[in-house]
Amino acid sequence: MPDPRFTRRGLLAGGAATVAGALSARISERSPSTGGTALAATPPDTTPQTPAGSATEPFHGVRQAGVATLPQAHAVFVGLDLLPGTGREAIGRMMRLLTDDARRLTQGRPALADTEPELAVLPARLTVTFGFGPGLFAAAGLGERRPASVAPLPRFTIDRLEERWTGADLLLQICADDGVTLAHALRMTVKDARAFARVRWTQRGFRRSPVTQAPGLTQHNLLGQLDGTVNPRPGTPDFDRAVWVNDGPEWLRGGTTLVLRRIRAELETWDAADRTAKEFTVGRRLDTGAPLTGRFEHDEPDFDRLTPAGLPVISEYAHIRRAHVKDPGMRIFRRVYNYDEGLTARGHSDCGLLFASYQADVTRQFVPIQRRLAEADLLNEWTTPIGSAVFAVPPGCAEGGWIGETLLS
Amino acid sequence: MPDPRFTRRGLLAGGAATVAGALSARISERSPSTGGTALAATPPDTTPQTPAGSATEPFHGVRQAGVATLPQAHAVFVGLDLLPGTGREAIGRMMRLLTDDARRLTQGRPALADTEPELAVLPARLTVTFGFGPGLFAAAGLGERRPASVAPLPRFTIDRLEERWTGADLLLQICADDGVTLAHALRMTVKDARAFARVRWTQRGFRRSPVTQAPGLTQHNLLGQLDGTVNPRPGTPDFDRAVWVNDGPEWLRGGTTLVLRRIRAELETWDAADRTAKEFTVGRRLDTGAPLTGRFEHDEPDFDRLTPAGLPVISEYAHIRRAHVKDPGMRIFRRVYNYDEGLTARGHSDCGLLFASYQADVTRQFVPIQRRLAEADLLNEWTTPIGSAVFAVPPGCAEGGWIGETLLS
Repeated sequence: MPDPRFTRRGLLAGGAATVAGALSARISERSPSTGGTALAATPPDTTPQTPAGSATEPFHGVRQAGVATLPQAHAVFVGLDLLPGTGREAIGRMMRLLTDDARRLTQGRPALADTEPELAVLPARLTVTFGFGPGLFAAAGLGERRPASVAPLPRFTIDRLEERWTGADLLLQICADDGVTLAHALRMTVKDARAFARVRWTQRGFRRSPVTQAPGLTQHNLLGQLDGTVNPRPGTPDFDRAVWVNDGPEWLRGGTTLVLRRIRAELETWDAADRTAKEFTVGRRLDTGAPLTGRFEHDEPDFDRLTPAGLPVISEYAHIRRAHVKDPGMRIFRRVYNYDEGLTARGHSDCGLLFASYQADVTRQFVPIQRRLAEADLLNEWTTPIGSAVFAVPPGCAEGGWIGETLLS
Repeated sequence: MPDPRFTRRGLLAGGAATVAGALSARISERSPSTGGTALAATPPDTTPQTPAGSATEPFHGVRQAGVATLPQAHAVFVGLDLLPGTGREAIGRMMRLLTDDARRLTQGRPALADTEPELAVLPARLTVTFGFGPGLFAAAGLGERRPASVAPLPRFTIDRLEERWTGADLLLQICADDGVTLAHALRMTVKDARAFARVRWTQRGFRRSPVTQAPGLTQHNLLGQLDGTVNPRPGTPDFDRAVWVNDGPEWLRGGTTLVLRRIRAELETWDAADRTAKEFTVGRRLDTGAPLTGRFEHDEPDFDRLTPAGLPVISEYAHIRRAHVKDPGMRIFRRVYNYDEGLTARGHSDCGLLFASYQADVTRQFVPIQRRLAEADLLNEWTTPIGSAVFAVPPGCAEGGWIGETLLS
């Protein structure tokens, strides 16, 4: 039985359906008094301030939310570095504080010292997920409990990593379907981390929300590609095997690891290529996402099929061939966001992907794929990794517990 | 009769209800095959890619969309400066191109030379609104048709304006309920403007979407204030009188003017104040938004009421007293977005408001309010205007027409 949290029915009961339901409830409740009058007519003062954004994701559980959770529309990833002298005991205090913030805010309750409690009431499926970078283990004197692959990635030839997007001791990953909710949760949690850490980087992303585009459909990224077709599906045995840590260090069982790569898209030159060239590069159609050997998005690519001229239909260097992993339990789980940070004076975007990859083991799963892509992926011409960080994502906690207790207590 | 576009019923028919409807349609259509299986289960390949984000706002009409339109969740304001030598005829060509982009994209169709047409199919209530700054009139040799108040604002003592957020010849205001839609529309329109102009600034904002928080309810901004209580209501005679140009230059009739102020919020010191001090500053309760003399948000403030000690309950320097305008037809219409741009190393936010104010006449309506606020508003202690720009927002156009034709053709 799949966890009901991750079934369509479960989601719709707890999330989107609540949204739709609350909306219709409001409509029928209020139309008699406002029908035919101006849209923004003064609502009766008795209207409760608990509308559609009240959908929540559970906080407590064996696993942290924010990984298998249906991706929300907005995300911010914050990389923090511990202040000098912040050891195991202090990190534990910080994690208790941050866990308490997350526990409250994700359920639509203000943080303990919330300075804008009114902003907490619409959680909009808020999740707050914590990750531990290599530096945290060192600072806590727990280097021997750090999984070997929670370390800077090997250097890839395609990397043009910038210090300002790379590494960090602690990750806060905050996701919600609403930007105001996100801003408030970000501020409240970072405030409580300040006594222990400084902000190294902040990376904001967006994707289509489950209300804009029906959940379960793959999304187009800013390059126009359908992105994530072969992702393991939450709730399946393949997902559980690929994502959750089932062996290795005891404290991380039920957790996962996260590789966060900031990948700049060279949209100007990408768009100078025609559709045929783009599809040849990716190995899929841009519109349907079907492999060049198939008709539908989820058709299995036929890597052996040849053109009449005897060349592979899906090039040796096509992205989907280079990224292909046969064993579904060895795949990576991508929960990708777009970023778009502004425009140069000449009108060029600074945009790309916040490529968040979750897997049980970075070295076994992520690195071989990345290596094959780095060696020869046509898409490299138009994508440049400019940031990289690796984190252990501890398991979830029970009501009286806190995230990180299995490592730090 | 109010324009049906702006009635609750009209909105729900064309917007949110479509969302809810499409969502339920998908649910009932797909549950039999997917109920009980994993959330992200592979959708059948026959699933049409036309889900909930397909809600549209009309493009053609007497007025441009994006002013009286129920505010969308996301906005980007782009200030452009015309390249040297770009005169009336070239500006006209540019506006024809940009109008065509807006006409297509807002209705869910790709732009003519769209390089990512797949991103155009979910308009998510996209609007693209154009504004003309003082420099455009000069460049077009039409200085005499520039309304006198479409000019840099008088200098206010509270201003700490930064060049990088101030002025511009042309404004693109792009709003949508989806971030991917917004990014795509931004890129396509700016691409077509490039031959004529350079980007001066890009300002991104967000607010609660009509799905998160039921439309018609006032929103809390990042300071925790309910923001926009006394806004004129679209579809009312007061709104029409306050916002739309009914006299003055013939070419601007049916249009409006926009003052865009970037107002930094000093959240760190604001949050050092207690709730009583914050409420005294604003003149309203933070939770309900009720004036300090009332119980409900929309109660009329009683500016004459005194405390037992003989002092005004609503201070002489409270924000709502300084901002108060008796004649509803002389008010300004605020369509405000929050911004939040990142974090300093110490964990302080760079956030505030994109204060977009629409009014028939800047000098008669906006300037007196701003002057009273600048003279003595307690809130000035925690808010700093760091950007300012003024634009004429031309009327809308018919199917064969283009925005700006009344001025430029």
